[in-house]
Amino acid sequence: MSDSPRTRFFSDNTATVCPEILAALAEANTGLAGAYGDDPWTERLDGALGEFFGTEVRAFPIATGTAANALALATLAPPYGAVFAHHQAHIACDECGAPGFFTGGAQLTLLDGQQAKLSAAALSRALEEHPVSVHTVQPAAVSVSQATELGGAYRPAELTALCQVAHAQGLKVHMDGARLANALAFLDCPPADVTWRAGIDVLSFGATKNGAMAAEAVVFFDLALVRDFELRRKRAGHLLSKSRYVSAQLLAYVETGLWRRNAEQANRLARRIGEAAGARLLHPVEANEVFVRLGEAGKEALRSAGFEFYDWGAPASGLARLVASWDQSEQGVQALCASLGELPGT
Amino acid sequence: MSDSPRTRFFSDNTATVCPEILAALAEANTGLAGAYGDDPWTERLDGALGEFFGTEVRAFPIATGTAANALALATLAPPYGAVFAHHQAHIACDECGAPGFFTGGAQLTLLDGQQAKLSAAALSRALEEHPVSVHTVQPAAVSVSQATELGGAYRPAELTALCQVAHAQGLKVHMDGARLANALAFLDCPPADVTWRAGIDVLSFGATKNGAMAAEAVVFFDLALVRDFELRRKRAGHLLSKSRYVSAQLLAYVETGLWRRNAEQANRLARRIGEAAGARLLHPVEANEVFVRLGEAGKEALRSAGFEFYDWGAPASGLARLVASWDQSEQGVQALCASLGELPGT
Amino acid sequence: MSDSPRTRFFSDNTATVCPEILAALAEANTGLAGAYGDDPWTERLDGALGEFFGTEVRAFPIATGTAANALALATLAPPYGAVFAHHQAHIACDECGAPGFFTGGAQLTLLDGQQAKLSAAALSRALEEHPVSVHTVQPAAVSVSQATELGGAYRPAELTALCQVAHAQGLKVHMDGARLANALAFLDCPPADVTWRAGIDVLSFGATKNGAMAAEAVVFFDLALVRDFELRRKRAGHLLSKSRYVSAQLLAYVETGLWRRNAEQANRLARRIGEAAGARLLHPVEANEVFVRLGEAGKEALRSAGFEFYDWGAPASGLARLVASWDQSEQGVQALCASLGELPGT
Amino acid sequence: MSDSPRTRFFSDNTATVCPEILAALAEANTGLAGAYGDDPWTERLDGALGEFFGTEVRAFPIATGTAANALALATLAPPYGAVFAHHQAHIACDECGAPGFFTGGAQLTLLDGQQAKLSAAALSRALEEHPVSVHTVQPAAVSVSQATELGGAYRPAELTALCQVAHAQGLKVHMDGARLANALAFLDCPPADVTWRAGIDVLSFGATKNGAMAAEAVVFFDLALVRDFELRRKRAGHLLSKSRYVSAQLLAYVETGLWRRNAEQANRLARRIGEAAGARLLHPVEANEVFVRLGEAGKEALRSAGFEFYDWGAPASGLARLVASWDQSEQGVQALCASLGELPGT
Repeated sequence: MSDSPRTRFFSDNTATVCPEILAALAEANTGLAGAYGDDPWTERLDGALGEFFGTEVRAFPIATGTAANALALATLAPPYGAVFAHHQAHIACDECGAPGFFTGGAQLTLLDGQQAKLSAAALSRALEEHPVSVHTVQPAAVSVSQATELGGAYRPAELTALCQVAHAQGLKVHMDGARLANALAFLDCPPADVTWRAGIDVLSFGATKNGAMAAEAVVFFDLALVRDFELRRKRAGHLLSKSRYVSAQLLAYVETGLWRRNAEQANRLARRIGEAAGARLLHPVEANEVFVRLGEAGKEALRSAGFEFYDWGAPASGLARLVASWDQSEQGVQALCASLGELPGT
Repeated sequence: MSDSPRTRFFSDNTATVCPEILAALAEANTGLAGAYGDDPWTERLDGALGEFFGTEVRAFPIATGTAANALALATLAPPYGAVFAHHQAHIACDECGAPGFFTGGAQLTLLDGQQAKLSAAALSRALEEHPVSVHTVQPAAVSVSQATELGGAYRPAELTALCQVAHAQGLKVHMDGARLANALAFLDCPPADVTWRAGIDVLSFGATKNGAMAAEAVVFFDLALVRDFELRRKRAGHLLSKSRYVSAQLLAYVETGLWRRNAEQANRLARRIGEAAGARLLHPVEANEVFVRLGEAGKEALRSAGFEFYDWGAPASGLARLVASWDQSEQGVQALCASLGELPGT
Repeated sequence: MSDSPRTRFFSDNTATVCPEILAALAEANTGLAGAYGDDPWTERLDGALGEFFGTEVRAFPIATGTAANALALATLAPPYGAVFAHHQAHIACDECGAPGFFTGGAQLTLLDGQQAKLSAAALSRALEEHPVSVHTVQPAAVSVSQATELGGAYRPAELTALCQVAHAQGLKVHMDGARLANALAFLDCPPADVTWRAGIDVLSFGATKNGAMAAEAVVFFDLALVRDFELRRKRAGHLLSKSRYVSAQLLAYVETGLWRRNAEQANRLARRIGEAAGARLLHPVEANEVFVRLGEAGKEALRSAGFEFYDWGAPASGLARLVASWDQSEQGVQALCASLGELPGT
Repeated sequence: MSDSPRTRFFSDNTATVCPEILAALAEANTGLAGAYGDDPWTERLDGALGEFFGTEVRAFPIATGTAANALALATLAPPYGAVFAHHQAHIACDECGAPGFFTGGAQLTLLDGQQAKLSAAALSRALEEHPVSVHTVQPAAVSVSQATELGGAYRPAELTALCQVAHAQGLKVHMDGARLANALAFLDCPPADVTWRAGIDVLSFGATKNGAMAAEAVVFFDLALVRDFELRRKRAGHLLSKSRYVSAQLLAYVETGLWRRNAEQANRLARRIGEAAGARLLHPVEANEVFVRLGEAGKEALRSAGFEFYDWGAPASGLARLVASWDQSEQGVQALCASLGELPGT
C-alpha cells in the first residue's frame, strides 16, 4: 500500500499531521491535568473559538467529523424529526447512517442543488410540500456542507437566505465544516460571514483534513441549543479522557493562522490542477477538491502514470475526484498537471 | 485547576503521554497513507496483537474506552438482549448509558460480587433465575473488568469458571480491559491466561490510562463475532480517518514492552500507598488503584496537605480512591504515604 | 363531528366494522384461552393464511399497519441498512419515522416512479449508484405498496422483475399490503401471483381498511426471515395479550371470502367515481382510491355540497383524494358522481 | 390447548371479554367516523377519565399494557436517563426490553422492596447513592405497579411518600396500572388517592386484564408532560386508525362501574383461594393474584387434578402463582380451594 507521496490524490485524510500540531501536542504534554475536558486547554476552547468567529460560542472537542455531525444533529432533531440536506451530503452518503443512529431514527429528506448546495428556494419548496401532522416526521433541521461535497463554497448571501427560510419555519441549521478552512481561504471573508452571521446555529468545525491529527469541534452559536449535548457526547463514547490533546490541536489551529496557511496551500494546488484540467473540469474549484471528466481511458492513463484518485459518480461515468492536501508535494502536482495536459482532448 | 504534579491522585486519565508514544506518533508522521485504517500501521495491528496474546485475533483501533466497550457489547447483544455485569462495572456506572445506546436498548442485569468481581456461582444463579421467553430480555453476554473497578485482578481460574458458565448457556464474554496491563503486571502471567485461554471472546484493550494519548483496541478472539463490527464503528463516528496515529500508539505499546514498564511502575506506587494505608485499606491492591477508609476528618487532613483524590461510595461514607499513574512522581507518593501514616488511627 | 355517512370520502379508515367481523369476535369470546397467541385462533393463522396464499407461511397478528410495516422492515434491515421505497410510500410519508425507530436507524432511499410504483429499472439504477463500503448504509430491503399510494395495482410481471433485481443484489422485498385485497379484487389473480410467487419475502397484510376492527398480519413467505420477529414484536408492545380477538378477525377475513366481497364493493364504487370524474381523473382507478384534479373552485363546490375528502399534493395544487369504503352508501356515491358531473369542465 | 374453564388460573389475560364491552363495540359501530382518534368516542376520553379520577387529564387509548408503559416512560426519560423500579416490575421482567427500546436506551435501576413495592426510603437511598455527572445516567423517572407484581396494593400514604422523594429530586413518577381496578376495589378509596393526589404524574390505566378486549389508556395527570407523546405513539405504530373501538371500551369501563364490578369479583375469588391456601400463602391477597408455596409435590397434585397455573420464582422453589379472572367459574374456584385444602400440610 505504501504509495510515493507525489502520486496520491485520494483525500486530504491521507495527509500527515503538520509540524505545528505535533509541537502543540508535545507542549500540552506536561503535568497532570484534569480528565474529560477539565483541563486548561479545553477550558480555553470557548474563548479561542469565540475569538476566531467573533462571537460568544460553546465549543466541544471531538475526534471525528462523523461524530461531530451526528452529535450536532442529535441535539437539533428529535427521533421523529426530519433533517433536510443535499442528496450528496456527507451525512447522507458517507457516514453509514450515523445521523439515524445518534438521533434515534430521524429521517433525512434529501434535496437537489447545484454543486451540492442547498438553495433557499429548494428548501422553501421542500418545506411547503412536507405536510406536518402526527403522521409525518417533523421538520427539525437543515444541514449544509461548507465547502460542499463537490468543492463549492456557499457565499454569505446564499447561506443567509437559506437560514432565513429555515428559521422562519422553526428549523435549526447545522453546518458540516469539515473543510470550512478551505472555503474561508477561498472566500477570503471573516469566519462569521458564513457561519453565525448568516444564521448557522451549530457547526462541525474540522481540522483533521487540514493538518491536524484528529481534531474537530462542535461549535454552538446558539448557546441555548447546547442542552444535553455533553450527555449525548459521553454516551456515544466521544468524550476523550485526555481531552487536552484534542483541544491543544484546535488551539494551535485557530490561534496561529495555521488553518489559513494550510488551506491556502491546498487550495492553490487544487486550482493548479483545475486549470490543467481545462475543459475536463466539472465544477469551479473553490476549495481543495477537483472534479474532472477523464473518461475511462483518461483514468487508465493517469493511473498508469502513477497517480491515485477516486472514481466519482456512477460506474463507468468516467468521472474522477482529485484532492490536494496541505502537504501535497509541488512536484507531484506539477507532474499531475503535465499528465492532465497530455491527455487527448483536454 | 493547575495542580502541582505531586498532589493529584484522581485518576490515571490525568497523566501525560509517555515519551515512547510521542515518538511513535512522530515516526508515523511520514508520507501519505491510506485513510480509515487502510494504512501500514493499522494493517499490522492484527499481527502485533495476535503476537501479544499468542493467538490469532482481529483488532480495531478506537479512541476511547467507553466506545470500545459499547461497540463490543453491541456486537454481542441484540437490542432485546441482557448483558450481565457487576453492579459497579464501568459500563453500568460511568458510561452515561452507552451500552443501551450502542446495542439499541439491551438491558443490563447487575450482580453483586467481592471486589467488583463476577463469580461463576453468581452468574450461574442469575441465569437460573432469569426466565427465557418472548417476554424477557434474552441473555446474550457477560462483561467483566480486568482489573476490576475496585482494583482487583481476576485469577485465570476464576475467569475460566465464569466463561464456562456463560458459554454453556450460549452467552459471549466481553472483558473491559481498560487496566488490563495493570492486572497482567500484577498476575505476572501470559496475556492469554486471562483472556482467550480463559474464554474471553472480545476484549476492550486499553492503553490510554497507561501512557498512551488516546488508544484502545477492540480485540476479537472469537473471529466469527467480528460480523458487522466495522459498520457499527463507522456509524458511531469511531472510525478515525487518520487511523495510523491510533494504531501507531498501540503498536508501540505492545511491541516494546511499554505496557509492562508503565503498569509495573504504577502498580508499585499503588502498593506503597496501600502499605502506608495499613488498616485503612479496603481491598488488596492488585493494580494501580487504592481504596481506603479515611473518614471525613482524614480526607480533610489529606486535602489540606495538598493531595487530590475522589470520594468513593455513598456520601459521608468516608471512603476514598487513590490512583497512581505511570508518571506519578515518587516524591508525591512518598509524601502521600507519610501523610497517610500520620493520620490518627491508621 | 358526526358526519352523515353519505358525505365522507376521507379514508377507508373512517368506515365501520363489518358484521361478519363482529360475529367472529363474539364467536371467539368463549372460554379461557391461552394469552399472547397461545390460543386456537392464533394457532390456526399459519394454516389459514397458508391456504389463502397457496404456500407455507408464518403469520403474526398485529393491530396496526404502521406496526406491521415497521416490524417487518426491522426484521429485514439492520440499523445500518438502506431500505428502498417510492418517495410517496406510506412508510416514508405517513408513519412518523416508524421504520427508523424499529430498525434502529436504517435509512430510506426514496425513488420516483409512475403511480407510486417502483420499477425494476429504477431500482436497478439506484442500486448501481449506491456505493457499498464501510462508509455507506448497506442496501438491505425494498418495500412496495400493493395497491400503491396512488391507487395503482402492480401487475405480477412488474413485481417479479422488481424482486429479481432486489434478490440478485441480496436485498429482501417487503410488501405493504394495507390494501392488498383491493388490488387482488382488481387484478382478479390468485394472491400468490402478486406475493411470494413474484418474489415478495414478507407481507404486511391489512384487513382494517377493508372491514375489520384492527387486524393486520405480518406474513413471512421466506420462513427463514422470521428469526427474531417475535421478540421485536413483544418489545414494541405489539404482542396482544388477548391475541385471539385479532386472529379471529383475520380468520373470518380470509376464510369466508369476506376480503373479496368488501374489496369488490369498495372498488366498484371507486370506479364509478372515477368514471364520473372524467378528464379530471389523474390515475387509473385500480383499487378504492380516486385521485382527481378539482381546482380550488371545484373543491369548494364539492365541500359546499357536503362531501368531505382530503386535499392531495402540494398546497394550492387543486388535487384531491376520494376514497370509497366497503360500507360507503350507494346514494352518497351517486350524489358525489352527480356533483362531479356538474362541475364546470369535467 | 382448550382447557375447561374451571381449571385455568394462569392469568387474567386468558379471560374472555365481558358482555358490556362487546355491547359497547357494537354500539360504536355506526356511521363513518374520523380516523386516528378524531372520533366522538376518543374525544370523550379526556372528560370521562377526568371524571373518573376527579381532575383534569389527557388520556390516550392504547392496545397493550407494554406499549402504554413504554410510551409513558419514553415521555418521562431521555435516552440517557435512569428509571427506578422494583426488580420484579413488569417493565423490568416481562416486556422484553420495551422501556429500553422506546426511550432509546434509558437504563433501569432496580431496587428491592416488600411484596414488589418501592418504598420512599429505598428510593431515597438509591438516589443518594447514584452520583450525577456527565458520566452517569441521569435520574429521570420512577415506575411503580399498582397492584404490584406480587399482588400488593400501595396505600395512599406509601405512594405519597414515594412521590415526594421523587419529585424533590426532579424525577417524574409513572404508575403501571394494569391491575389498578383490582387495587382500587381492595382499597375502596377514590381513584385520586392512589394516583394524582399521591403524586403520580402519568398512569398506564389497564382494562384488558379486567374484562376488556384490548384497551389501555395512558393518562397524564401532569398535562405539561404530554409534549411529544402523540408523535411517539404514532411512530411506534400505536395510533389505531379505528381508535373509536378502543375508546368505546374505555368509556364503558369507567362510566358504568364495570371496572369495579369485574375487579371485585376477581378479588373476591382470589381471596377465597388465599384463605384456602392457609399457611401456604406467601403474601396478603390484595388484588386478584395469589402466591403460594406448594412444593413440587403440591404442584404436581394440583396439576393432576386439572388445575393450571404458572410456576413462580426460581426453578424448584416450589412456588406458584394463581390468578382469578372476572369470569372465573365459581365451581372452578371452589374445586381449587378444596384441592388446596387437601394438600398435606396446608
